[in-house]
Amino acid sequence: MITATPAYDELSTTWSRLHRLGHLQSLAGWDQAANMPPKGNEARAAAMTEMAGLLHRMRTDPRLRDQLGRAEQEPLSDLQRANLREMHRQWRASNALPESLVQRQQMATSRCEHAWRTQRPANDWKGFVPNFRTVLELAREEAALLSAHTGLSKYDALMDRYEPGMTCAQLDRVFGEVRQWLPGLIDRVVARQATETVREPVGPFALAAQRGLCEQVIRMLGFDFEAGRLDVSTHPFCGGVPEDVRMTTRFREDDFLGSLMGTIHETGHGRYEQNLPRDLLGQPVAEARSMALHESQSLSFEMQLGSHPGFVSRLAPLVRAAFGDQPAFEAQNLHRLLTRVKRGTIRVDADEVTYPAHIILRYEIERPLLEGEIEPEDVPALWDAKMMELLGADTRGNYKDGPMQDVHWPESLFGYFPCYSLGAMYSAQWFAAMRRAMPELDERIGRGELTVVFDWLRDNIWSQASRWTTDELARRASGEPLNPAHFKAHLEGRYLA
Amino acid sequence: MITATPAYDELSTTWSRLHRLGHLQSLAGWDQAANMPPKGNEARAAAMTEMAGLLHRMRTDPRLRDQLGRAEQEPLSDLQRANLREMHRQWRASNALPESLVQRQQMATSRCEHAWRTQRPANDWKGFVPNFRTVLELAREEAALLSAHTGLSKYDALMDRYEPGMTCAQLDRVFGEVRQWLPGLIDRVVARQATETVREPVGPFALAAQRGLCEQVIRMLGFDFEAGRLDVSTHPFCGGVPEDVRMTTRFREDDFLGSLMGTIHETGHGRYEQNLPRDLLGQPVAEARSMALHESQSLSFEMQLGSHPGFVSRLAPLVRAAFGDQPAFEAQNLHRLLTRVKRGTIRVDADEVTYPAHIILRYEIERPLLEGEIEPEDVPALWDAKMMELLGADTRGNYKDGPMQDVHWPESLFGYFPCYSLGAMYSAQWFAAMRRAMPELDERIGRGELTVVFDWLRDNIWSQASRWTTDELARRASGEPLNPAHFKAHLEGRYLA
Repeated sequence: MITATPAYDELSTTWSRLHRLGHLQSLAGWDQAANMPPKGNEARAAAMTEMAGLLHRMRTDPRLRDQLGRAEQEPLSDLQRANLREMHRQWRASNALPESLVQRQQMATSRCEHAWRTQRPANDWKGFVPNFRTVLELAREEAALLSAHTGLSKYDALMDRYEPGMTCAQLDRVFGEVRQWLPGLIDRVVARQATETVREPVGPFALAAQRGLCEQVIRMLGFDFEAGRLDVSTHPFCGGVPEDVRMTTRFREDDFLGSLMGTIHETGHGRYEQNLPRDLLGQPVAEARSMALHESQSLSFEMQLGSHPGFVSRLAPLVRAAFGDQPAFEAQNLHRLLTRVKRGTIRVDADEVTYPAHIILRYEIERPLLEGEIEPEDVPALWDAKMMELLGADTRGNYKDGPMQDVHWPESLFGYFPCYSLGAMYSAQWFAAMRRAMPELDERIGRGELTVVFDWLRDNIWSQASRWTTDELARRASGEPLNPAHFKAHLEGRYLA
Repeated sequence: MITATPAYDELSTTWSRLHRLGHLQSLAGWDQAANMPPKGNEARAAAMTEMAGLLHRMRTDPRLRDQLGRAEQEPLSDLQRANLREMHRQWRASNALPESLVQRQQMATSRCEHAWRTQRPANDWKGFVPNFRTVLELAREEAALLSAHTGLSKYDALMDRYEPGMTCAQLDRVFGEVRQWLPGLIDRVVARQATETVREPVGPFALAAQRGLCEQVIRMLGFDFEAGRLDVSTHPFCGGVPEDVRMTTRFREDDFLGSLMGTIHETGHGRYEQNLPRDLLGQPVAEARSMALHESQSLSFEMQLGSHPGFVSRLAPLVRAAFGDQPAFEAQNLHRLLTRVKRGTIRVDADEVTYPAHIILRYEIERPLLEGEIEPEDVPALWDAKMMELLGADTRGNYKDGPMQDVHWPESLFGYFPCYSLGAMYSAQWFAAMRRAMPELDERIGRGELTVVFDWLRDNIWSQASRWTTDELARRASGEPLNPAHFKAHLEGRYLA
């Protein structure tokens, strides 16, 4: 068959192949976390490394350069052109780094992360630093190369891997603004909640009942169990492939809310993946837009919707049906439990009000680290000062609940942290847009008419995938690019109204 | 590094890569059966087809021919030479068939198998024949090509894929002999059992208790749960990789013995895989010897050991602990339940005495089919006649319980059926050899000293993998090549003594 777009078609075929082989890699990653017995680890790591190398060779095939160049000249549709733009972006990222650097990074992060697992509980910062220094030096090398390839600044170049188009200039503006009002807002919320009575649920909560409740709520949230599963893993995540989404959660007998809300969070990720445009799956334009956009979906589900008083009123009878009646299961009390604000030292335990403080702190440390302005030795003092300033918490000498608490730095995921808070801001922006379009939104959520939310997200976010830049996507969905005022309004509305 | 065996080393590297990528393929196959939701099927099939093509291209890389030739001239150890022999065998099989034939076969078997799923319950032989004719014609084409490449006869060439070295000449001798004594032996056993009282267990049997019992028995049989799992699938199988064995079973509330014995069967496969030589994993010489040898392990576990009166006496208290006391759980009664012989029409429901009749019947039909002596239209009459002759059963007009009952023909697995009965014969031969070496074997099994069995199997079968031809392996393990007299002696000893 002769087509008018032979180079584009060849590229398209290559990316379909990458998608199919990536399917197996993704499944193996999910299985590793959800099923794999311990002695399978070595062979699994070898298999996944082999596949990673193979995929890397496909992405750096010298023929791609020529094909990408020729495709630019072909008569493409707008959608094809958007796809070509994303192909270019992925190709640039894959080809910027020499394989030797990639391998040294794999070695260094693997060693650092593995040692960190025992160093963290032992509070062993001294032991951690040498490994972390190696990881950091390689990340600086990577940032320099990516920067040279893209023309972006070093931190921007790393961030671009997760959040294309986001820059420090924009982040400084956004986080700088949040930094102004957040500590005061936390003060006011904590003071206000001090006078509230909250009843604690009394466990134990049978795991089978918890699982049943989670599945019921996931169904209510529209997750398609014909095209995905819910399993158990140590660290909950959403993996698999858009055609077969694998979410995980974890259960604790003494607490059902943590796993329930965690599952609702993963369901947001899951529905985004399940609703990416089917006819284009395998092409970069059909992939989720960015990590902040992904997080905007999980937080739309967990925070905007899942902790919405109307939604909680629908949840309460299900909780009672699962575990029997308790005063703590009364809707208003459940809502209070879900919106309690507490200053703490641990990011993953933080509520939606204090969470951005954890992120801003990390951004303000990892950026100068990456840019060579500070060294690993400087981190603890900086951490302690910022923790005191932002959250009034004392972390001196407590490395395990301080700079050693996250897996991101051992894993060299510099530039990832901001996505969490950007996601929270976008999710507030989406719900603000929904309310403008649908003034009765809150009442409808209270009546259980959740479809209005899902329809909006499908039309404006899920189905759009990577067709537009993030800014353009936000403008089309909500009339403006990222605007943190909606996040502030959301917090004030929910916690101070 | 300069080695004296550069070509061999290159081959060895290639096979390690095949092993690593095959790991992902095997895992995806297991997941497809044990976990995958229905809407994931299309993407999974596409992913596995992509990988199958990639593996095929690696196995047919033109450089292999030269490397195999040069490696022959290199100073190899005996073990390396055995490995090279197996590489040659696999290479020959992969390179004998043009990709177009492989693709047409995939299409034809996929269509035939898919239609068969509904045609079988509808007893629709007429609808089945056209699809099956296409499958058969392609199998004849394949057999002709393989025969030309290997110098084997057509059926031998197909059988060689599953049971290297086995020939029709040997099968005719072995099955011909069994055919002489089997119908009479069945008569005598059935007559003798007619006077026995057997109590039926009374269900339902809670699935959680069944699962617990299965896991307990698997552990007792030495399966390493740190290097494998037990899950549920429609059709039980043993998959995964030697480093991480994935067994499956299925549970029925009204019958626990079926899933228990099925699980014991898979455990035999699983322990073989788990005990292949670790330092050579990835090389062909470290793979299981053949399908008959694999089946000899599952049947050593299920029939020789699992239905052994001494083992059943150890099983009885576990059954009582799982489901409470019942008269049917008395050891002698359990043993009678496990050794009841019934003439039936369905192979997969057959006991170990009547099973070979089902296999001989299939062999006597699929061989002339393959060799072009008969056509699909001739199958039902032949089936009916042989079923009457061998098992006294009337299958006229009953295609669904006749020639349409197995997935093997729709799947074009011609030459596979004999492995089941060869496996049963080998397993009897192994236990006869154990008894010669250890006259107190049966008493020790009754005392729960199962290690003596596992040690013998590990030393003689598992650890030997594909180092020797099957004949040589059998000679080293038991002093002689395949000898069906041990199978006859086993049946007479267990059912007529």
